[in-house]
Amino acid sequence: MTSQRSDSVSVNSDMGEAFGLHTFGNDSALMSLIDVANVACGFHSGDPGTMDATAALAQQHGVRVGAHPGLPDLVGFGRREMKLTPDEVESLIRYQVGALAGFLRKYDLPLNHIKPHGSLYGMLARDEALMLGAVKVARDFGVPVFGIAGSAHQRVAEREGVEFVGELYVDLDYNADGGLIILRQPHETNIVAASERARRALDTGTVLAVDGTELPISFGSICVHSDTPNAVEVATAVRAVVDG
Amino acid sequence: MTSQRSDSVSVNSDMGEAFGLHTFGNDSALMSLIDVANVACGFHSGDPGTMDATAALAQQHGVRVGAHPGLPDLVGFGRREMKLTPDEVESLIRYQVGALAGFLRKYDLPLNHIKPHGSLYGMLARDEALMLGAVKVARDFGVPVFGIAGSAHQRVAEREGVEFVGELYVDLDYNADGGLIILRQPHETNIVAASERARRALDTGTVLAVDGTELPISFGSICVHSDTPNAVEVATAVRAVVDG
Amino acid sequence: MTSQRSDSVSVNSDMGEAFGLHTFGNDSALMSLIDVANVACGFHSGDPGTMDATAALAQQHGVRVGAHPGLPDLVGFGRREMKLTPDEVESLIRYQVGALAGFLRKYDLPLNHIKPHGSLYGMLARDEALMLGAVKVARDFGVPVFGIAGSAHQRVAEREGVEFVGELYVDLDYNADGGLIILRQPHETNIVAASERARRALDTGTVLAVDGTELPISFGSICVHSDTPNAVEVATAVRAVVDG
Amino acid sequence: MTSQRSDSVSVNSDMGEAFGLHTFGNDSALMSLIDVANVACGFHSGDPGTMDATAALAQQHGVRVGAHPGLPDLVGFGRREMKLTPDEVESLIRYQVGALAGFLRKYDLPLNHIKPHGSLYGMLARDEALMLGAVKVARDFGVPVFGIAGSAHQRVAEREGVEFVGELYVDLDYNADGGLIILRQPHETNIVAASERARRALDTGTVLAVDGTELPISFGSICVHSDTPNAVEVATAVRAVVDG
Repeated sequence: MTSQRSDSVSVNSDMGEAFGLHTFGNDSALMSLIDVANVACGFHSGDPGTMDATAALAQQHGVRVGAHPGLPDLVGFGRREMKLTPDEVESLIRYQVGALAGFLRKYDLPLNHIKPHGSLYGMLARDEALMLGAVKVARDFGVPVFGIAGSAHQRVAEREGVEFVGELYVDLDYNADGGLIILRQPHETNIVAASERARRALDTGTVLAVDGTELPISFGSICVHSDTPNAVEVATAVRAVVDG
Repeated sequence: MTSQRSDSVSVNSDMGEAFGLHTFGNDSALMSLIDVANVACGFHSGDPGTMDATAALAQQHGVRVGAHPGLPDLVGFGRREMKLTPDEVESLIRYQVGALAGFLRKYDLPLNHIKPHGSLYGMLARDEALMLGAVKVARDFGVPVFGIAGSAHQRVAEREGVEFVGELYVDLDYNADGGLIILRQPHETNIVAASERARRALDTGTVLAVDGTELPISFGSICVHSDTPNAVEVATAVRAVVDG
Repeated sequence: MTSQRSDSVSVNSDMGEAFGLHTFGNDSALMSLIDVANVACGFHSGDPGTMDATAALAQQHGVRVGAHPGLPDLVGFGRREMKLTPDEVESLIRYQVGALAGFLRKYDLPLNHIKPHGSLYGMLARDEALMLGAVKVARDFGVPVFGIAGSAHQRVAEREGVEFVGELYVDLDYNADGGLIILRQPHETNIVAASERARRALDTGTVLAVDGTELPISFGSICVHSDTPNAVEVATAVRAVVDG
Repeated sequence: MTSQRSDSVSVNSDMGEAFGLHTFGNDSALMSLIDVANVACGFHSGDPGTMDATAALAQQHGVRVGAHPGLPDLVGFGRREMKLTPDEVESLIRYQVGALAGFLRKYDLPLNHIKPHGSLYGMLARDEALMLGAVKVARDFGVPVFGIAGSAHQRVAEREGVEFVGELYVDLDYNADGGLIILRQPHETNIVAASERARRALDTGTVLAVDGTELPISFGSICVHSDTPNAVEVATAVRAVVDG
């Protein structure tokens, strides 16, 4: 059972969300706990030097690296929705994915996937026209997209013949309709609740919404955010459940 | 004679230096006059939408496309020197080159070369440690670098086994030591002088510095800037000389 | 009649929307045609050097200067809506208004008013909580806000005891509900239609919506945009009507 | 003795150097230990929301607030020198000082002083033409400039009739010529050494350079940086010496 779990379900985390002198301080510890890193590409956070260092760190830990493109809003950390056209979404994702690929080339790492960040993730979950931009870039780079099963993330990817990997979140809450509640400010995660959610999801394929609704969930990867105060503890707990 | 010239010497121009609603207005006309486009990558100018449109335009005209990475200074248009470490130079070039490559992938265009922009170009001409960053990126992408023959551009490229293409400038003046005089503000170019410089360089392999010194010049490409008021006329004149 | 018009109704234009080397090219000509300049403050366009030059130009022409704060989005020229909190709106307006006031101090010019730019203008016209941020800043600086009569612009200003100045637009179309249709790309304005709209509004206090609906309009200033190709002609025509 | 010290010598610290979600985490604790805050104005770090919160915090603690304008380089935290003209320096300082003054107006706080940040501080210490830009802004706002005694900071301020306040640094080293050694990355400060330097300077008016040279130092304020890991301990120690 155990090995099946860790074979089929990965743990991913947003990495490289430092900006210049400012860091969240968790990347080194987290990199040893995860399978897959979503690396910030400079628009919501991250900068060229941080991207290089993050790619190097991932290589050292044998972690697979995907792009984590965000909205062009450093002050808002990509968590303030912007009204963008489908062409704009495609271009800003393509720019950021290409930029990351430049660093992966240095460390002989293949691009593993694309996972939109923050509000862009939410916008693309709801809007197929916008999601198409991300999918076009994924197709050009020959990689899957990470997202929410059943949302526009999955529908557009599959319609366009791009591989889709569903995600489970253990440090964000779900609405009764399956949508994620994305907060502007990071907050401490309850470790017991996070472990319990991971275990329930792996065992029963369901997740509980904030109002207690039991939602079916399909996923191939569990996401742990890196900007929460206790991110390392959360990742440790989730790692234990997945390896369990 | 004619065909030999246009076979061996290309005309290149900086393209895609619009920024959002702001354009220099010359790109469409210039693209039909040049062989090689150096496309701005977002740091000194250019934005993701402009990069996509510029790659599309180049494809349409059969123009080869290289990256034109600049200093991270939109207000200064990359024309204010910054004190950067070699690692920073490598990372900011790698980021921008990767970003452009993402757009080229969309249009099935290979990356043709890397040509540093503005003050970065000048800094790298003088400082081998900084130039090494550009050369590492060029080697990873398997492309030549464009630069000034005899400068650190050429020395570092050749030492590291990266192809080097020398450039002749017709709209900037040369110091007696062969260095370019880069002005902050674009200015009208004298068409007769530009044609004459191109012809002399093609015929005799020399260029005249501002003080009249005759300098030997080795080049494989002639650069025409796109942000001058009469850029299209300059390109037309140079095109005629090269095809002549 | 004539003098009454030009006494009571001013012509205003958005000025200083250059960015680094990029300009729209109309500011010098426009400054001699207008009464009031709304100066860009660096977030949607404008940069410190441009702000200084624009304040100097306004002083030279005896033009009154207000702040034209925009969304923090240079690539989108402040024309892509962002989901901001009321506190964020207040802070970004306060920052930009303060910055402009620093330049006005140099030229002994008083701050004349605050006029939000682009999508921020539209967001504040519809949302009283957001508009309150602009009004708080205007109150602290002791200046009126410019906006759309009957919208949240006017309601919040008047409720909070801040002077309000309504605007008429001659180069944007009106919806049947009185809202402005803000396009992302500037376009040529029909001079005859612009003159006719100004004359009708001055004579009858009404404006025609795109569907022909006759809307009552209350205004103290007529706005001419500076980023359209024929902005100078539009301003000349409107000036003639207002002085007429 | 004691009261004389704290009357005549203040403790200042750089505050509000957070950027969006990224903070150094020390501001709340530091604000209760200092007399004067130099508030970041958005170019090297800081954002409008942080500036508002920092002004509010300063008001609450009765701390005097000055502007801490930096180079336009968020990624480099204003610690990478840029080649700027005197006009550019004046404009970017004026922009940032004005922006901060907008927040001070909200909290009924007067602007206390201007202190250039990071590499801008160093550039202005060495170059009178650049320093003149800062001095012009200080004169227009009627406030002193903080800087290094004996450098261009002091010479230009006094020549132009602007009050000058010299600073002592306890967490940066001095060259034998009195220049500060500004590092790109913050580092832990030796508390004993910092206390000792403050005590020696207060008692004897001298500071020891890295090579042991005893330098005379004239100062009215002692600076403690806020971005070092043990900033709060340093400030506590310096506070004790000054109050001592």
